[in-house]
Amino acid sequence: MAHPLDKVAIAGIGSTEFSKNSGRSEMQLAAECVKAALDDAGLSPADVDGMVTFTIDNNEDVALVRNLGVKELSYSSRIPHGGGGSGGSIVHAAGAIAAGLADTVVVWRAMNERSEYRFGQATNPGAVAPGGGATGMEWAVPWGAATPACWQAMFSHRYMTEYGVTNEDLAHISVLMRKHAVNNPNAFGYQSPITIDDHQNSRWIIEPVLRLLDCCQESDGGQAFVLTSLERARDLQQPPVRITAGAQSVPYPIDAITNFYQDDFTDMLSTVGMAKQLYERSGVGPADIQVAMLYDHFSPIILQHLEGWGFCAKGEAMDFVKDGHCELDGSLPVNPNGGLIGEAYIHGLNSAAEGVRQIRGTAINQIANVEHVAFSSGMTGLIFGHG
Amino acid sequence: MAHPLDKVAIAGIGSTEFSKNSGRSEMQLAAECVKAALDDAGLSPADVDGMVTFTIDNNEDVALVRNLGVKELSYSSRIPHGGGGSGGSIVHAAGAIAAGLADTVVVWRAMNERSEYRFGQATNPGAVAPGGGATGMEWAVPWGAATPACWQAMFSHRYMTEYGVTNEDLAHISVLMRKHAVNNPNAFGYQSPITIDDHQNSRWIIEPVLRLLDCCQESDGGQAFVLTSLERARDLQQPPVRITAGAQSVPYPIDAITNFYQDDFTDMLSTVGMAKQLYERSGVGPADIQVAMLYDHFSPIILQHLEGWGFCAKGEAMDFVKDGHCELDGSLPVNPNGGLIGEAYIHGLNSAAEGVRQIRGTAINQIANVEHVAFSSGMTGLIFGHG
Repeated sequence: MAHPLDKVAIAGIGSTEFSKNSGRSEMQLAAECVKAALDDAGLSPADVDGMVTFTIDNNEDVALVRNLGVKELSYSSRIPHGGGGSGGSIVHAAGAIAAGLADTVVVWRAMNERSEYRFGQATNPGAVAPGGGATGMEWAVPWGAATPACWQAMFSHRYMTEYGVTNEDLAHISVLMRKHAVNNPNAFGYQSPITIDDHQNSRWIIEPVLRLLDCCQESDGGQAFVLTSLERARDLQQPPVRITAGAQSVPYPIDAITNFYQDDFTDMLSTVGMAKQLYERSGVGPADIQVAMLYDHFSPIILQHLEGWGFCAKGEAMDFVKDGHCELDGSLPVNPNGGLIGEAYIHGLNSAAEGVRQIRGTAINQIANVEHVAFSSGMTGLIFGHG
Repeated sequence: MAHPLDKVAIAGIGSTEFSKNSGRSEMQLAAECVKAALDDAGLSPADVDGMVTFTIDNNEDVALVRNLGVKELSYSSRIPHGGGGSGGSIVHAAGAIAAGLADTVVVWRAMNERSEYRFGQATNPGAVAPGGGATGMEWAVPWGAATPACWQAMFSHRYMTEYGVTNEDLAHISVLMRKHAVNNPNAFGYQSPITIDDHQNSRWIIEPVLRLLDCCQESDGGQAFVLTSLERARDLQQPPVRITAGAQSVPYPIDAITNFYQDDFTDMLSTVGMAKQLYERSGVGPADIQVAMLYDHFSPIILQHLEGWGFCAKGEAMDFVKDGHCELDGSLPVNPNGGLIGEAYIHGLNSAAEGVRQIRGTAINQIANVEHVAFSSGMTGLIFGHG
């Protein structure tokens, strides 16, 4: 029997421009991207009856309702765990529709994460708010591990040590993401490819794991989605993108940010758990997926996404990348828009939008014959299909 | 066709004691109340695969997972809008089960809201965190309206002026809540009834609307629920309590806290919208409900709940109370446990637990022949029935 989410679709996507200084409020960004997604779907704010965002999004839905002209929400929710949970916003929106709690749900994330505050700096109020999923701040921050780059480097270093991956190897990931972004006018990496040497000459952020060019783009911007029933989406103006499966996974030893409690750091346990659920719910397997949108806030995490989803065997992801499998003409193109490293960092959701475009067939770097797209934010993920 | 939530049930409830100083951490309270709810259901932490709490609950689910011994969550969510949204935690948990995203979801709210911080004082970090649902703080706080009592009094005063309700009238509500709490050993009001004179001699909090005895009990404590499919709940150790309906409503002009944007303050628009959804989804009407659990952080809000749900006509709620309809032997007993004024203020959820007991037939002040219980937190609500 098909999973209930299989009868739900993404009917619209919309974003603001991605920049280093939007020049306007986060509420303005939220309203703009939601309106753009509704326009894309051919719907109006009056059709909206559900909203989902992140726990740490600074915009109140009660205000967005008024600013857009929504009549009444019957579903309002927030998903925890920051970027790791980002895909959960779409999963929960789909769940609300499947459970009969709403008909037309918008998901948004809007932030001035470069001009108003910076996740990359040690002052990170969002990371410690309730729902951030961090329980180990007091064991990390006083010793100087006070930024996402520190936390990720601690985690990735063990994998790199175990499997002989060096920072020069990671350069191949960043170069690939920037290569994919070169012809994407919405990307920070538009018309500015980098070389292995550029990467190796960029300054250390956390030696010996991460250089500047291993890090995603601190960004201002907003990204939104409109979900509705698949049946209704078929009557709207875009080809519906089916929620073939959606899942979330919080295994026993996991933290969202200061994730140092599992026995073996070489596994990303939440991704393993999430992919297992997705495959069980959909009957789709790794070989049925043509494009992978993988949350690349830092380059090495791509390796653990690839292994967690079973796209390659444990310890082989670096070779998988270097052998060209993740190129646009490879066996599994990864982040054809440039991802968070090449395009922008709207806390993961701009990568989900690229997944939607790849199913629609409207991406700038469109992959041929796409049946299924994997979207992975680490602790949450989706498989998109045709509606 | 029955609404999908109709196939979901509450299988367990559990709480800590309610106190003014718990003497332990909020995490400890969360773990204790969740464990108690699981024990009540005859389930173990290893059975749990979903968690829902409030955006402003300070406990991280990733930590609660480890502290309890949960294996893996496949659903994790937080509901916004503070106490007004409190029922949403149960609605969303039920929705997750109906949508196939989880099988056994725990809902909790745990706080040291008296000993660590006080919602009743002007410093209220929770109210302004993202998801609090307040957009008008900057128009209220600088003029001294810096507490929930102020905001509620601004809203209720218009109703009282319009319908000739005085603070002495409100005394009848507080006296009734305290009367219901007299034989409830879990209640602050246990064995301590109050009189109209006691109420009228208590000090003004916000003159001429609210006196001290119009206010709920600032409380430390935790309250939890276990939800699963109705089919599975029937095999567990408690009589299942069916989610006959669940709903959430955020109409256009509504704020969760600084709710001063609607044309007519005499209506609680979100309650009207929510009740309409509940009745439509369930086919149950006001006459089919035997017990009403109404979010009474302050006494006058009971009046607008009663009217919003259609238990009496507009402007007639004060007479409805004074005529004895809300007594234990009245036509619609309200808060037989004493409610938030008489029992405790676990941000509304202890009232939902009393609703469960009234369906089970295990309440201290058990009402006879209960078929349906209404639970209303203002912006969210449920109808409970037999499973």
